[in-house]
Amino acid sequence: MERGRGITDGRCFPEGFVQLQNPNIELMDQDILYHLALGSESHDLIEMFGDIKFVCMGGTPKRVEQFAYYIMEEIGHKLPTGTTLQDISKFSYRYSMYKHGMGIPSVGILLNEVVKLMHHARVQDPIFFRIGTSGGIGVEGGTVILSEEAVNEQLEPCYELSVLGKKVRRPAKLDKKLLRELKSLHHKEDPYDTVTGKTMCTLDFYEGQGRLDGAFCHFTEAEKMDYLQNLKTEGIVNIEMESLAFAAMTHAAGIRSAIVCVSIVDRLKGDQIHTPKEVLDEWQMRPQQLVARYIKRYLQMKGRISFDKSCGSVCVKSPRRFKLVQQESESYD
Amino acid sequence: MERGRGITDGRCFPEGFVQLQNPNIELMDQDILYHLALGSESHDLIEMFGDIKFVCMGGTPKRVEQFAYYIMEEIGHKLPTGTTLQDISKFSYRYSMYKHGMGIPSVGILLNEVVKLMHHARVQDPIFFRIGTSGGIGVEGGTVILSEEAVNEQLEPCYELSVLGKKVRRPAKLDKKLLRELKSLHHKEDPYDTVTGKTMCTLDFYEGQGRLDGAFCHFTEAEKMDYLQNLKTEGIVNIEMESLAFAAMTHAAGIRSAIVCVSIVDRLKGDQIHTPKEVLDEWQMRPQQLVARYIKRYLQMKGRISFDKSCGSVCVKSPRRFKLVQQESESYD
Repeated sequence: MERGRGITDGRCFPEGFVQLQNPNIELMDQDILYHLALGSESHDLIEMFGDIKFVCMGGTPKRVEQFAYYIMEEIGHKLPTGTTLQDISKFSYRYSMYKHGMGIPSVGILLNEVVKLMHHARVQDPIFFRIGTSGGIGVEGGTVILSEEAVNEQLEPCYELSVLGKKVRRPAKLDKKLLRELKSLHHKEDPYDTVTGKTMCTLDFYEGQGRLDGAFCHFTEAEKMDYLQNLKTEGIVNIEMESLAFAAMTHAAGIRSAIVCVSIVDRLKGDQIHTPKEVLDEWQMRPQQLVARYIKRYLQMKGRISFDKSCGSVCVKSPRRFKLVQQESESYD
Repeated sequence: MERGRGITDGRCFPEGFVQLQNPNIELMDQDILYHLALGSESHDLIEMFGDIKFVCMGGTPKRVEQFAYYIMEEIGHKLPTGTTLQDISKFSYRYSMYKHGMGIPSVGILLNEVVKLMHHARVQDPIFFRIGTSGGIGVEGGTVILSEEAVNEQLEPCYELSVLGKKVRRPAKLDKKLLRELKSLHHKEDPYDTVTGKTMCTLDFYEGQGRLDGAFCHFTEAEKMDYLQNLKTEGIVNIEMESLAFAAMTHAAGIRSAIVCVSIVDRLKGDQIHTPKEVLDEWQMRPQQLVARYIKRYLQMKGRISFDKSCGSVCVKSPRRFKLVQQESESYD
């Protein structure tokens, strides 16, 4: 079913391989994925990454590492004694995980290189998740938010970038089926809500999100509240800083993707994050739980995992490797 | 001389303190600097940061840490036996150093909070440096580039951001005197050039900088070269991804600042970074050397440091503390 689905610009990708929208790459002797510190000739990318199915991205190294250990536990994957998850340049494991830093430029660099990596590694039909935090709009802290689409600061569902000095716009679409599947994995017993809606993506955290508490503020609280109320009326449920590039680039690459964020503050009630760190840490686990449920269900359906109901534990029939890549963003900045 | 120089919007800042352009901050019980994990009530910011003179920002933790050790060595600062530089939340040292991650959103978050930190800590006349890497335009790898001003992708010297959904533009000006002083600190014996010119700041590293090697490319090599040649004609000497927000925000806050980058590739000759890591590492030291010379000279002029010519070493008359803050960007992304 998945095969041949990556249809973009009228082209059909054979066997679900990730195709690049750049004819130059095939003509290069080697493609250096600079920010990942990998190369198409210096590394055997097919051997290292060819078995990837899920790519999970988060903004911070801690969250990404935490998720790596969490998902291993969830699907019953054990590392050999004496080994630990490490940067991909030293070890490789199944399922790549990336931290992208904050903002569109960071996630844009990473996605360019990860999409090329998927292509070089001949990965088939990967699914990308962004696991993040966000400010809720009338959505209380701790609520899990699934993005229906990403919109820019003018509330348009497109990612605008400047190419050779000219503005180019690309639709910031997310996979509707994946969204429904994720939504269905919310449990009634979960001590929090899981909601869907539009996600606004901004370039600035303070003025750009209508915060009154930055170093610069030339608007009133009333103007701020009018602005946020209008966002709510327009169907915006949360604000963050990466969704636009994430949605537009995965869509353009023919890759199914979803954005799962937790609200860390209801912006209709305030700007500053007063919630204690322990509570924030627990909240940040919630999007991870939802994505882990999806991955577990996927592996079950593929017969790679089964539940041993007698003890409630998870057995992995054919243990798979994990891959953990933390983008160290060593350079060019 | 420095006193009262921070004139912005017709206001004069008494005694060189950093003033905020936000009347709300003074009315808050506490200001939480969320991404720095500091608070105006939970921490004694005056005690911790009040003696800061220089704030040096770089994009990567490695570069920032490296610079911290380098500048300590240069000015002859010794840490007590058994201590080491650490995150500010554990130790504090004179001279704050920050990594800002890649791109305008990251540096914008950091600058909002660092400017507020300077204000709360009652720091007087701080000088901010961005130490970075960049792609040169007709400027070979290893050359040090001092930015005269930052321009956007339309070559306008202003930082445009969206505030309550409306576009706002702010001049991306840098301090001309500081630029001249830094330029004068280039040594004839330096095995590289130090040039000045305009710096273009982009939101994207691949298409946004006219690279042919991203996951997406819909232009030809000839179109790329035309574009880059035009940049050169317009006086652009390098391209990077943070200068616009750095220049505009420090300028708006009345803070003197400079951007010192090294070219890691001449974009007229190629897109990919083929230079070996050891060479890149040496190149990245060059902007650090220039900034270190400035800081050393400043301390000499203030009588806080003197040269012992007999051994060529540096003596610090009154040892000062260092501060090292690595923004872990734990949250909200």
